Order: sequence, then C-alpha cells, then structure tokens
Amino acid sequence: MADKQRVCIIGSGNWGSAIAKIVGANAAKLNNFEDRVTMYVYEETINGKKLTEIINETHENVKYLPGHKLPPNVIAVPDVVKAAEDADILIFVIPHQFINKICSTLLGKIKPTAVGLSLVKGFDKKEGGGIELISHIITKQLHIPVSVLMGANLASEVAEEMFCETTIGCKDKNMASILRDIIQTPYFRVVVVEDVDSVECCGALKNIVACAAGFVDGLGLGDNTKAAVIRLGLMEMIKFVDVFFPGGKLSTFFESCGVADLITTCYGGRNRKVSEAFVKTGKTIEELEKEMLNGQKLQGPFTAEEVNYMLKAKDMERRFPLFTAVHRICTGEIKPAELIEYIRYHPEHMDNDVNATILQLPSPRCRL
Amino acid sequence: MADKQRVCIIGSGNWGSAIAKIVGANAAKLNNFEDRVTMYVYEETINGKKLTEIINETHENVKYLPGHKLPPNVIAVPDVVKAAEDADILIFVIPHQFINKICSTLLGKIKPTAVGLSLVKGFDKKEGGGIELISHIITKQLHIPVSVLMGANLASEVAEEMFCETTIGCKDKNMASILRDIIQTPYFRVVVVEDVDSVECCGALKNIVACAAGFVDGLGLGDNTKAAVIRLGLMEMIKFVDVFFPGGKLSTFFESCGVADLITTCYGGRNRKVSEAFVKTGKTIEELEKEMLNGQKLQGPFTAEEVNYMLKAKDMERRFPLFTAVHRICTGEIKPAELIEYIRYHPEHMDNDVNATILQLPSPRCRL
Repeated sequence: MADKQRVCIIGSGNWGSAIAKIVGANAAKLNNFEDRVTMYVYEETINGKKLTEIINETHENVKYLPGHKLPPNVIAVPDVVKAAEDADILIFVIPHQFINKICSTLLGKIKPTAVGLSLVKGFDKKEGGGIELISHIITKQLHIPVSVLMGANLASEVAEEMFCETTIGCKDKNMASILRDIIQTPYFRVVVVEDVDSVECCGALKNIVACAAGFVDGLGLGDNTKAAVIRLGLMEMIKFVDVFFPGGKLSTFFESCGVADLITTCYGGRNRKVSEAFVKTGKTIEELEKEMLNGQKLQGPFTAEEVNYMLKAKDMERRFPLFTAVHRICTGEIKPAELIEYIRYHPEHMDNDVNATILQLPSPRCRL
Repeated sequence: MADKQRVCIIGSGNWGSAIAKIVGANAAKLNNFEDRVTMYVYEETINGKKLTEIINETHENVKYLPGHKLPPNVIAVPDVVKAAEDADILIFVIPHQFINKICSTLLGKIKPTAVGLSLVKGFDKKEGGGIELISHIITKQLHIPVSVLMGANLASEVAEEMFCETTIGCKDKNMASILRDIIQTPYFRVVVVEDVDSVECCGALKNIVACAAGFVDGLGLGDNTKAAVIRLGLMEMIKFVDVFFPGGKLSTFFESCGVADLITTCYGGRNRKVSEAFVKTGKTIEELEKEMLNGQKLQGPFTAEEVNYMLKAKDMERRFPLFTAVHRICTGEIKPAELIEYIRYHPEHMDNDVNATILQLPSPRCRL
C-alpha cells in the first residue's frame, strides 16, 4: 500500500459522473492517491463530436450530468480495458445488465491486486433462476474482493453538493479506510459497515417496498397505512437478508442504505410513481414503462419476480406476504386492493407473543 | 384473572374517542371483558346540552370525533372517580399537562389491582429540571404498573378503520395478552414489546426530529438531506434512550412506534409544518403557535428544551448535535441554516472506524 492508489470509474451516467466529481477532487487533494482518475465512457456522438472528447476538453458530461464541472484530473476513456488496466480501485457504476459483459472484457486485463467498489443497484438473474448479487458476480468473474456503496443518494443532489450520507459495505479494515478517503467529502458523509451483502440487498429490495407504497398512494389509503406498509416492507427486507444472505447485523438497516434510502424511494422515486399510476390508470406495468419511462424496465417488479422465485423455491411466500403481494399485483394475478388483505395478518404481528389469540392467526380472508 | 375485566378510558378527545370505538367493540365481543366500558369525559356544554348526555344518547362524540358512532356499551361519565373506580384496566389518553391532576384525583379511589395503559404522548417536566415519563408518573402516583401504546396512528384514520399498526410496550406477559385482546382488531394491528420506556420515548422524541425535517423543507435542501436528517435523528433517539433509559432493544425502533411513526411525523404532522413556516416566515415559534395552532403549544420545541436540559447536565450536547441544533434554532440562538453545520461531522460518521482520517473529525466550522 506504499504506492499511490490509482482509481478507475467504470461508467459515466448520471450517478457515475456525480461520483467522478467527488473521486476526482479527493484524488487530486490526497497524497495517497494518484491525481489522474480514469473514467470509462461508452462512446457516443453528440452534435458530431465524441462524448469522451467533449468531457476531456470541457470537463463536463454534457449528456448525463450537464451543468456540473468534473475535476480536470478525471480523464474520459472510451476503451474500458485501457481505463482499468493500471487501476488499484475499480468503481463499478453501470446498469446491472451490462456487468457480465464488462467483466468478461476485463478478465485477465486488470491488476491482480485490484479491488472493486460496486455502486450498481439491483440483482442479477442467476442461471437456473433466483438472484445473484452484483458484487458476487464481479468477484467470481474477476477474482477480486468487491465492496459496495449504497444510500439515499439522488445523483442530481449529490452533484449539487447538498448534504447527504452514504453507506459503504466493506469487509477489510484497511480497504475500508482507503475507500472512505476517496469517497467522503464534507457534504457526502460515509459510514462503513462490514456486512456487504446486507448493504447491497437494501439497494435492490427497497424497490419492491416502493411499489407497495405506490399502490397505497394510488388506492388513497392514508398516512397510517403507508407507514405500516413501509415498516412491514423493511421487516421483510431484514428477514430476506437473514434467510438468504445470513450473517448481517440489524444495525445495518438503520444506515443510509437502509431506512434512509427506503424513505426517499417510498416518497419520491420512479417505482412509487409508476405503481401509483398502475392503480389509477388500470394499465399494465409494461404499458406504463413505455409511457412513463421511455420503455426502460422498472426495477421493483423485476426484483419482486426474482425474489418470488427464491421464496417459492423455499416455500416461504407466506412469511413474506408483502413481497409476494407486490409480485402478484404486478403480474395481474391479484388486484392492488388485495395488498392489505395479504399483510393484515402479517407474521410480524405474531412473532413476539406465544400467547397470541385467535385474532392474530391468518384468517381465511387472507389468500396466501 | 377469572373475573371479567372492566375497562375505563380516561379521556375523550380525538384519539381517546377513536380508541373507545375499538375498545368498546372488543369488550362487547370478547368473553373475558365486561361489556360496559366507561369513558371519562371532561364535561362541556354543546348547544345547551351536556356532552356526556349527547354521547350517551347519540353514541357520537360530536365535538371531538364527529361522524363516527361509538359502540353503545361505551358510557360517557363526567366524574373521573366514578368512571375509574371499578376498572381493572385504566387507559390514559389525555394531554400530558393534565396527568398529575388526574392522578391526584384518582389516588386511593381505584382498585389496588388495576393496571394502566398510557396513550399519552410527550414528556413531563421533572421537579428540578429534566424529563419524566408519563407512565412513570402514573406508576409513582397511583402505585400501579403502567404499559404504553404508541405508533403511526393518526386518530382520524384509525376511526375510519384504515389499516395500521401500533406498538404496546408491556413488561408482563399475561397483561400483554389481555391488552392485545382489548386493543387489536383486523384493521388495528398490535405488536407487543417489553421495553416500555423505549416505546414511550419514541412518541416524544420523534417531534424533535420532525422539527429538523421541517427546517430542511423550509430551507429547500432536498430529499437526500431530509433522509439523512431523519436517519441521524433516529440515531439520536436510540442513543438518548440508551443513555437515559438503558436496557431497551434496538429492534423496538423498527416497530410502529419507531420508524413508522417517525416517517409520518416527518412528512405530515404539525411539528414539521410549523418548523417549515418558521424558516420561511422568520416569525418566532410563539407567533406561529398563535397563528397556526390557536395558541396551542408545539410539542417539538418543548421536548427539545427538556432534552437539552438533560444533555447539558451530562455535558453531552456534542453527542446529540441534531437535538442540540433543533433546540438552539427554536430559541433563536442559531439560524435554521446552521442545522447542517451541526450534523456535518456527526458522531455517527465516526463510531465505526478507528482508522477514521482527519476528514471525520469535527472541524472548527462546527460550532458545538
């Protein structure tokens, strides 16, 4: 660790560019980092000029983060292998569907001592069904340790340097310190925790809960019900991680990646918004994706489907009635109004008391 | 416990009447409770007629919960001693400033085997300064065990029978089962936990955090910052309970009384609203109480003051920078915009890593 650390950012969208602004400034300032930060940019042509050239001349990602200057030491590189080959720290910030392709391109071309930091949200499909964590995919493919960063971090507000927090999940104490150094600023505050998987799961599972919150909004069910749905969703997030990625700590869910990100996602956020429209318009999720998202896939319904596959395989749908209801609502199996019947006799209302009376048992009205 | 339990509700405001609707219906239905539920009503005259008479004839609290029928077995009683004298369960749901007077009126007049359930929100002032929990006051004055009930429970929505959750804090397993029976319905879902003090503290401390959330809204600081403020507020709630009422469980803060109630309070709620206006208008809290609340006291600033007294006495203001900032902002000592400087180098950003670099240490810009 005596040498200066070289950093490469793989990705240059809205969030990638906002992080490049932070990482570039910190690299320039701190002695233990090489000033030059490479940023892999998928080449596009903007008004007849290459995006990488525009970024390197104007220090602005005019397509994905217009109006914000990147530090001049952030160098846009159109070739991911060239961008990454000397790097000690690889920051992955690309849509999750590209992760396998990027990793296979990089295989054998990076430093064997490199480490990864994944900012990628969402799960990937496992071969044969179920979910795979993005950080696990990177580790498997590139044989490097991978930490993750998640939190209540809307990219535009981070770029504006508005105060917020973030969570880094990192198992290695020395690495945690280095990652904190390159990420933290007076306006972007870092808390490091050890259970990487919990942090990453939060970033994906929150979108299922946001769908439920959107249904509640669409149904006009009020503040108490919305709070109950968000809380029960959080309880299912915790339980899910406990069952499928055991070893995490309850306290991780109090970090920015947990409650804080869940709150912003359930009050703002596209999953909430489209789900509200789903109830109010009666259109399908696919129709709304076309109308409201230019055809982009909504994360929540996709994650709910993957999660449901895993719950079904373990015969655990009953223990996750909110996740199950969201999946069935998105696929049209049940109506949004049935959400409440699914969670009315939630396991959470029974766990703590062996003396629970008949009122707490799932009634026949509950269809699970 | 062979006899039927008699229930008395002490209080008949908005929340008291909503709970009377639930308790009355359960008492009439369940075999282990006496049908007749008494409700102490502070006598008032409405259009020349006594409020107790109106309630007992029309089964509607026309002043505090108009539009909702109470079960006919709920009997309004204008004399608190007569209402309470035969009761096995006393449900307290009155403004906290009346608790001492009611208790001294009841002293020696209730069953010695009675138990209490407090729905009263907020702390009381301790003689000589600091705070005292309402449940502790009732126990001290009446020598009975007292449980508490808190949650994301807007009274109007509960009266509408919209689905929600609540938390009962009760140390005694048998009593927990009885309280759950009399409170729970298919739309009002109960989770019982043992650490009574944590549950009660949540109901008061959330209002300090809601003031901070309102300042953020007034300052236009965005979703990331608001989420960070709510999360750091929750962390200070947990720490406060740990220091002053030790022995609680972290999991209690995931219950309805914790995250759920905090969320509704920080997005809706009068503390948030008045605090937003405080920033936007530049008026004092007292002026806004007159204008927006007909002169009623706002809970948040009052609780922040009491809490600050306790923090100062233990030289702990630095460990609770958000609570401290809210107090100083409400009293005009500092400007709302300084809130962020107070929490920028929050102890939460330092606790987990002994390798924390200079960036994590409070800078001179932080005035604490």
